[in-house]
Amino acid sequence: MISSFHPPQRILMGPGPSDVNPRILEAMSRPTIGHLDPLFVGLMEEVKSLLQYAFQTENQLTIPISAPGSAGMEACFVNLVEPGDKVIICQNGVFGARMKENVDRIGGVAIMVEDAWGEAVDSEKLEKALAENPETKIVAFVHAETSTGALSDAKTLVEIAHKAGCLTIVDAVTSLAGVELNVDAWNIDAIYSGTQKCLSCTPGLSPVSFSANAQEKIKNRKTAVQSWFLDMNLVMGYWGDGSKGAKRAYHHTAPINAMYALHEALVILKEEGLENSWARHYKHHLALKAGLEAMGISFIVKEQDRLPQLNAITIPQGADDAKIRSRLLNEYQLEIGAGLGALAGKAWRIGLMGHASNQTNVLTCLSALDSILTSEGAKINSGVAVNAANGVYS
Amino acid sequence: MISSFHPPQRILMGPGPSDVNPRILEAMSRPTIGHLDPLFVGLMEEVKSLLQYAFQTENQLTIPISAPGSAGMEACFVNLVEPGDKVIICQNGVFGARMKENVDRIGGVAIMVEDAWGEAVDSEKLEKALAENPETKIVAFVHAETSTGALSDAKTLVEIAHKAGCLTIVDAVTSLAGVELNVDAWNIDAIYSGTQKCLSCTPGLSPVSFSANAQEKIKNRKTAVQSWFLDMNLVMGYWGDGSKGAKRAYHHTAPINAMYALHEALVILKEEGLENSWARHYKHHLALKAGLEAMGISFIVKEQDRLPQLNAITIPQGADDAKIRSRLLNEYQLEIGAGLGALAGKAWRIGLMGHASNQTNVLTCLSALDSILTSEGAKINSGVAVNAANGVYS
Repeated sequence: MISSFHPPQRILMGPGPSDVNPRILEAMSRPTIGHLDPLFVGLMEEVKSLLQYAFQTENQLTIPISAPGSAGMEACFVNLVEPGDKVIICQNGVFGARMKENVDRIGGVAIMVEDAWGEAVDSEKLEKALAENPETKIVAFVHAETSTGALSDAKTLVEIAHKAGCLTIVDAVTSLAGVELNVDAWNIDAIYSGTQKCLSCTPGLSPVSFSANAQEKIKNRKTAVQSWFLDMNLVMGYWGDGSKGAKRAYHHTAPINAMYALHEALVILKEEGLENSWARHYKHHLALKAGLEAMGISFIVKEQDRLPQLNAITIPQGADDAKIRSRLLNEYQLEIGAGLGALAGKAWRIGLMGHASNQTNVLTCLSALDSILTSEGAKINSGVAVNAANGVYS
Repeated sequence: MISSFHPPQRILMGPGPSDVNPRILEAMSRPTIGHLDPLFVGLMEEVKSLLQYAFQTENQLTIPISAPGSAGMEACFVNLVEPGDKVIICQNGVFGARMKENVDRIGGVAIMVEDAWGEAVDSEKLEKALAENPETKIVAFVHAETSTGALSDAKTLVEIAHKAGCLTIVDAVTSLAGVELNVDAWNIDAIYSGTQKCLSCTPGLSPVSFSANAQEKIKNRKTAVQSWFLDMNLVMGYWGDGSKGAKRAYHHTAPINAMYALHEALVILKEEGLENSWARHYKHHLALKAGLEAMGISFIVKEQDRLPQLNAITIPQGADDAKIRSRLLNEYQLEIGAGLGALAGKAWRIGLMGHASNQTNVLTCLSALDSILTSEGAKINSGVAVNAANGVYS
């Protein structure tokens, strides 16, 4: 007999989901109302406006897709890429490969510009690839690679793409609210994110934003968008095109309670202030870094390209990857992330995202790692991590 | 300044979402854990098993898609239809047209078999269409048309399709848990539903189930599934193929808290028992019907094809469609559904789905309709509806 499921209270310091603010969980449990209820339509308008703040954009088409980040990625590609279109993808981790999968399935031509895992995207390689492929229509890259913890220079990459007459698709799943991101100032054309990273919301929705140029391209496609569910022409009909009193056409049933949660997460972000959120993520990263380095643990990504919210570190010598993560979970209720793809078995990913980016988590994580790694006989400097981190806080 | 959103407590008697059991809302607010957490993997197995019960199937591939019902529809079509495939769609309402949209976007050839809105699908028309199109590969139809309230004979339609060597795709968005549905006994090959109808859960997920034959077809496709997010070959890798201890590959981040909610909804269904749930939906339909007929309001669908959980009725003479619905919402917190497509402006749809299918809702709805329609001068028999319904209950 299966009975109600009562999860434990974990500390979520992996690559997402991150710790969810209890205010958000409470918001999620508020009474469900209809997706065409005037009050829900009002909520949708607020979510739009709050997302515009989070993305720093005035793009009208700024909404959450009713599915996780992977669907947000697919929404950007299926709407902007048509069969035969050349798309340059700058890959420096797992998610560039997923972008290629999307382009392939549309019948587009993906041109891969590869960088080593753990490095930022090299803008010179992009310039060269664009020069060699002048008919390229789209440039896509990941702003903050969740698989490696590397941050790329989105502003410069978009500038280069625009000089070559290309539109840009940017993956901001892990960057939104964790590091500086200015969609309008950087002229990003299409961007997608997730709710379960630095917004600290429950997983399930994917905020996206499309520039006027991107919208223009979507409206003037020669072929139909291959996904009905993700066709922004239809989604726009439900979300409204920004004109006052425009009629909304039923498209799909919005995930009402997930929208309550996202709304609350965005209200919390606005209360804190975007710049303060970026600064908080950086501060706790510095403390975690001080502790890890005192232990003798090194980072995968070089300092200037490091994401504060996702710390990819080398697994210390003598430590059994799966066993250590399992002990952290069972003895400390603490989840950290395994390495993904090329980094599987070689790295751990420690997230400090959103609500999880706080002093208690940093100190708990360091003391748990210190204790377990020491007891497992791994090669670290024992008993010094917490003090080193406290040094940053004091 | 945008602040937290506090929705009112509505009575949801439209075409979905339906009233959500408070147990489900509470479950949704439980602490988020990771999507690769062993405890979450255990939850996934339970959800699979509970969905097998709800669908009455032993299909291994029985899972919720991480997006609303429309995405569940798309998942069935993009996985089973390849470019050039002929698909017969029996249309008797809005959702058949959406099926055609899906087939068109895949590059399949949709052959439409049309029935009047409000009627069940005519099996003889399907037989004729199959005889005329012997190379048809798939037959698709809606079991319970949410736009009209008509129930079709799924068992017979599937039999006819199989005789012609076709696989079947069945829309069970509104039927699951509300009326008899036996996936294995009826040999349905692919079926999708929604959480926000007779499961009375929050919207956002789409339970699907694929037979062994359907799985075989998916594994042996000549072309890649055009959606990465909905590719069941990849989704299976995350959900496991049923073999004990099979490794799970990360595909996308599951909507953890929405899964808690679905799990709780399915536990509630199991507690009540599927047959008892069907019987309850029928009982309250009879009471609502007695009240509406006493008022002089007629049904769109003829008696033997009527869905108990979705009552499409003719708007009485002298009643202003939008005004009445708006008064119901504002004065009684009561949501009923407008007509959709061909029935827009002509019909109302009163849902009695899942948790909303109860005596209080029936009596509240009848007394509210009675009072408002009378005060608006609509042509009804006033003051008799509630007594008529109570007659059924006593």
